[in-house]
Amino acid sequence: MLIVLHHTATVKDVENIKKTITKMGFKPVAIPGAERTAIGVIGNQGWVDDSALRDNKAIQEIIHVTKPYKLVSRDFHPKDTVVPLGKKITVGGTSPFLTIAGPCAVESGEQLMKTARFLKKLGVPVLRGGAYKPRTSPHSFQGLREGGLELLDEVRKETGLLVVTEIVSPEHVEIVAGKVDILQIGARNMQNFDLLTEVGKIKKPVILKRGLSATIEEWLGSAEYILLNGNPNVVLCERGIRTFETATRNTADLAIIPLVRKMTHLPIIFDPSHATGKRDLVLPTALAAIVVGAHGVMVEIHPDPEHALSDGAQSLHFKEFGSLLAQMKSLISFKKQKLTVL
Amino acid sequence: MLIVLHHTATVKDVENIKKTITKMGFKPVAIPGAERTAIGVIGNQGWVDDSALRDNKAIQEIIHVTKPYKLVSRDFHPKDTVVPLGKKITVGGTSPFLTIAGPCAVESGEQLMKTARFLKKLGVPVLRGGAYKPRTSPHSFQGLREGGLELLDEVRKETGLLVVTEIVSPEHVEIVAGKVDILQIGARNMQNFDLLTEVGKIKKPVILKRGLSATIEEWLGSAEYILLNGNPNVVLCERGIRTFETATRNTADLAIIPLVRKMTHLPIIFDPSHATGKRDLVLPTALAAIVVGAHGVMVEIHPDPEHALSDGAQSLHFKEFGSLLAQMKSLISFKKQKLTVL
Amino acid sequence: MLIVLHHTATVKDVENIKKTITKMGFKPVAIPGAERTAIGVIGNQGWVDDSALRDNKAIQEIIHVTKPYKLVSRDFHPKDTVVPLGKKITVGGTSPFLTIAGPCAVESGEQLMKTARFLKKLGVPVLRGGAYKPRTSPHSFQGLREGGLELLDEVRKETGLLVVTEIVSPEHVEIVAGKVDILQIGARNMQNFDLLTEVGKIKKPVILKRGLSATIEEWLGSAEYILLNGNPNVVLCERGIRTFETATRNTADLAIIPLVRKMTHLPIIFDPSHATGKRDLVLPTALAAIVVGAHGVMVEIHPDPEHALSDGAQSLHFKEFGSLLAQMKSLISFKKQKLTVL
Amino acid sequence: MLIVLHHTATVKDVENIKKTITKMGFKPVAIPGAERTAIGVIGNQGWVDDSALRDNKAIQEIIHVTKPYKLVSRDFHPKDTVVPLGKKITVGGTSPFLTIAGPCAVESGEQLMKTARFLKKLGVPVLRGGAYKPRTSPHSFQGLREGGLELLDEVRKETGLLVVTEIVSPEHVEIVAGKVDILQIGARNMQNFDLLTEVGKIKKPVILKRGLSATIEEWLGSAEYILLNGNPNVVLCERGIRTFETATRNTADLAIIPLVRKMTHLPIIFDPSHATGKRDLVLPTALAAIVVGAHGVMVEIHPDPEHALSDGAQSLHFKEFGSLLAQMKSLISFKKQKLTVL
Repeated sequence: MLIVLHHTATVKDVENIKKTITKMGFKPVAIPGAERTAIGVIGNQGWVDDSALRDNKAIQEIIHVTKPYKLVSRDFHPKDTVVPLGKKITVGGTSPFLTIAGPCAVESGEQLMKTARFLKKLGVPVLRGGAYKPRTSPHSFQGLREGGLELLDEVRKETGLLVVTEIVSPEHVEIVAGKVDILQIGARNMQNFDLLTEVGKIKKPVILKRGLSATIEEWLGSAEYILLNGNPNVVLCERGIRTFETATRNTADLAIIPLVRKMTHLPIIFDPSHATGKRDLVLPTALAAIVVGAHGVMVEIHPDPEHALSDGAQSLHFKEFGSLLAQMKSLISFKKQKLTVL
Repeated sequence: MLIVLHHTATVKDVENIKKTITKMGFKPVAIPGAERTAIGVIGNQGWVDDSALRDNKAIQEIIHVTKPYKLVSRDFHPKDTVVPLGKKITVGGTSPFLTIAGPCAVESGEQLMKTARFLKKLGVPVLRGGAYKPRTSPHSFQGLREGGLELLDEVRKETGLLVVTEIVSPEHVEIVAGKVDILQIGARNMQNFDLLTEVGKIKKPVILKRGLSATIEEWLGSAEYILLNGNPNVVLCERGIRTFETATRNTADLAIIPLVRKMTHLPIIFDPSHATGKRDLVLPTALAAIVVGAHGVMVEIHPDPEHALSDGAQSLHFKEFGSLLAQMKSLISFKKQKLTVL
Repeated sequence: MLIVLHHTATVKDVENIKKTITKMGFKPVAIPGAERTAIGVIGNQGWVDDSALRDNKAIQEIIHVTKPYKLVSRDFHPKDTVVPLGKKITVGGTSPFLTIAGPCAVESGEQLMKTARFLKKLGVPVLRGGAYKPRTSPHSFQGLREGGLELLDEVRKETGLLVVTEIVSPEHVEIVAGKVDILQIGARNMQNFDLLTEVGKIKKPVILKRGLSATIEEWLGSAEYILLNGNPNVVLCERGIRTFETATRNTADLAIIPLVRKMTHLPIIFDPSHATGKRDLVLPTALAAIVVGAHGVMVEIHPDPEHALSDGAQSLHFKEFGSLLAQMKSLISFKKQKLTVL
Repeated sequence: MLIVLHHTATVKDVENIKKTITKMGFKPVAIPGAERTAIGVIGNQGWVDDSALRDNKAIQEIIHVTKPYKLVSRDFHPKDTVVPLGKKITVGGTSPFLTIAGPCAVESGEQLMKTARFLKKLGVPVLRGGAYKPRTSPHSFQGLREGGLELLDEVRKETGLLVVTEIVSPEHVEIVAGKVDILQIGARNMQNFDLLTEVGKIKKPVILKRGLSATIEEWLGSAEYILLNGNPNVVLCERGIRTFETATRNTADLAIIPLVRKMTHLPIIFDPSHATGKRDLVLPTALAAIVVGAHGVMVEIHPDPEHALSDGAQSLHFKEFGSLLAQMKSLISFKKQKLTVL
């Protein structure tokens, strides 16, 4: 921690602050400058609580050097985490690139089974489908909830596909974890800390989406909750952030994918459907995610997007998804041979 | 709903779209223009599901005229809602201006009682205090949780003050509602729809904070969840939004207070502590809130901010709060006589 | 300046960095910590160019403590600047609260004179009116340009009002400065550094609007250009920033007014018309600006807003402005006696 | 244009609005709905000035369907524009992918010539280098200005490379256009409309960067200024937008590249250096730009980034750029064969 004093701070101010730091159990080091003095704080093993200093009138600024997360940081865990999703499927590190696809919402057994069979034929290992749907308006379709979970469970049993669904409440952890292979925390719940804590107590893998206006630090802080409670199987998912630009549903923050990979050992995937909100933009941004080093993508598809109960405008037709998958495969095989991964 | 066609749309495209609208149960009205045609949709009683149209290649844009909320809209409920908080205390309409104050987090019985007695002496009717604390890092103080609720309950019994605390999980509704007078939904949970639904099932008043990056429409959509489930006692609370500017903790969006009052009949209060994050800015923005027409303010105070376990930098000392209250009283009495409320 | 090293930095890394700092002419002070070392840089008289260090792999972060501006900072110029606008009119410090009003664009001699006479009757000292209009679309009205300047010059001669107009190009400085009393740099030109430099070479007062997405630091950096070139007569003007919220034209950042007053000695005024974009919100936010400590307001009015060639939706009718002025006067007189200015 | 009325609007209100529209020279078409009436406006050939309607109390909202630009729109000019940069080099349409590279600022003849020779050897056709540098602080290096132009002119004569430099003031158009092949309008000047107008009067190609907080519509509106004044040779350049996220210098808005290509016939390139601000992120985002369909990239390189006078942290070493170029070539050749371009 570094404490920057006002240029009007007196020698006595400096002495008082040094005393306070000593009382806090740390060692102060004064750095006198031409215009103002700064004081370094030495000896902390982690985040320093600065409450005893914050109101000192002689202090201009307090700069924290230690980050508010540790378990998820690559600093102390340099090796990539590989998250097991099923018996043979993993994500992260040098695992093959992961593809997850499926409808925004589970609408019926027929819709889900049709999608699952299609994915199985293509070799896509994970089916997504929302049972609990967080919707801005209570007048919109809210998902089949428990009924949707049952359908997901049936489909995975019948097809052998892995299944991921969003969880929206801590009290659902037990029931949801019993019916699906992977849990998803949505953007709106990224800082639902009770929910993070609960999914930290189980071992099922968790896909943690970035909040609409979450900084990378806050996102990693949320992942830290899950790890700290005992569950190391976290997969980050970039899904676009909210900015002033409304021509796309969100702003796809693709550049942070290689940055996040430097900051944390956790895998990171990309959701081109929510990041852009437009079917035409899903294909190019999904391919871009491969190029910038994502470990996978999660794509919305629907047997009949024109009649989807939610997010139809960003869901791919089966045929479009087939074409995307072919292009992804081609790019991945090309990349392995020739492109540097950051 | 208005459907704007591409300038390349053919007569046949127009006919097809009109047929689809008719099948949806509404009436289409074509509006031919010099460059392109638009089609109006008539006959809907509320929000129209546009999924059957979204993928039509001849359509350039679909514009919804009806809003995704109705119960909270002033359109169909022109009279101000007055929310009863206790036997004699109300907020909204022409109720006297409301002041809520207290520490960010409940830390101890002594801290809470000291604050409560101070507030009672000043005539402030509502004490705030967080038992469950949502924190970015799991390594930060998480609140006393159930222990904090007990302390709040003791204090309200002893002092007669009303007590408000944040609720973070649907499964806590029963226990929290049993110990406090008013529930608060924090910014990070504004779209925790299961939580909104649960607090909609009780009758206790709910303070609903605006999300960090929530539009007014989304905020009102969240309030709609509470009303639709049966609880009309919602108080909105503007607490600053996230923008590119980091000189303040958030950007206090004071201008939307008179705008929200035109859009909804619900009361709206302002939280100058979170909106600015700086003690020096709490006083001027709290006064500004009175001027723009807020129904109240919620302010963080602490007997010893320098040693607060959270948000010390934005918490007022008792003396500072006393001065703020005096200035607020003076401004309110002035305003009643002379200032037009929008 | 503080240099934070990676936790993997070696003793040799530390030595190398210290040598580089010494070569730069400064003194390094190592601050060894439990997890990582930091190095303070001492002896600089201002902003340090860190280019020789930026690429060192052992460095995690470089933190600048000195700000990129100096002349505009209150640090070294604690006393408020009072800017003279005309013979008797000043703004800043304890000068009376300033009101500027007038149409967005100068449209005709009649429109301008009508407005000027109305303002004179009310005692408003400064008339605003755009001769050069920056418009998003080239198909929109671009202002009367030189013809508009002539009209402003005539009106000020006939009425004795001071006149302010926007300047958009460095080559216009001479002609514009010859026709008006105060120059305005608009939000879109806040970082038009050639223009800032040119208006720095004259002595006429300059109103410098904040850019749509400018931080306070960037805004003060732009003011520094004007002062550094010799013109101390700068008045800052907050006019709203661009955020995700589109319910208002911009987001009025009222909370930064008291903050900016702490950071700089320059006066600051508020433009409620552009900050909100809605006539109904001009009144409440103009009053709020008084409460948070602005030195003045600049308001758009028009004799016939329904037929204004630009910004009609945010321009007040004369009658509305008369009412606003009465309320402003009342609030100002109240405030002088009773409200603390931050 | 569509006019949505309040649900309280009377039959008389509707009649009045229809009369006003008729007076404006257009034809009104009423669309009565269950809750409220809307009125379509027919017969306009372009953007409608709505000033005569904006203040009508019966109107809830006015929705413009026609865009404020026309010449740059693909609607009326479906074929890609191919911009000639030199005798053999073009950008846009099916032209080969364009690479531009060079230092942020021209610092010396030696630095520039060294860079030019390196680029020539690699076959890179265009050298960038700033002579006029817009800098936040007046205390930072401002560029060699006219001296820099001379150096650029010498280098292009000696090496045959095309040269691009930023222009910051309308009065520089003649001198700059005489010394370089391509002009660049920087992000801070995207709405410097006098500058846009002046570069519209010459025929040299213009690279128009997106403003820090410019919407796509505003950006295209700025391009429209150049085309309307007679210069069709405009190349758009996405360079990142300002958001709440500060981990990267800007937020690279890669997803809008395919979207912009649908909206306009103009070519669009990407600047990975400013978009990310971090050397490590330049490579992955430059490759991503190829994948999403950009027509080229503009990259900052420097013979000695550690001692660059500006933007060193985002400038590539020669060796790094060589590696980037090799990977770009490989990806482009791969893409031509196998990847669908949107």
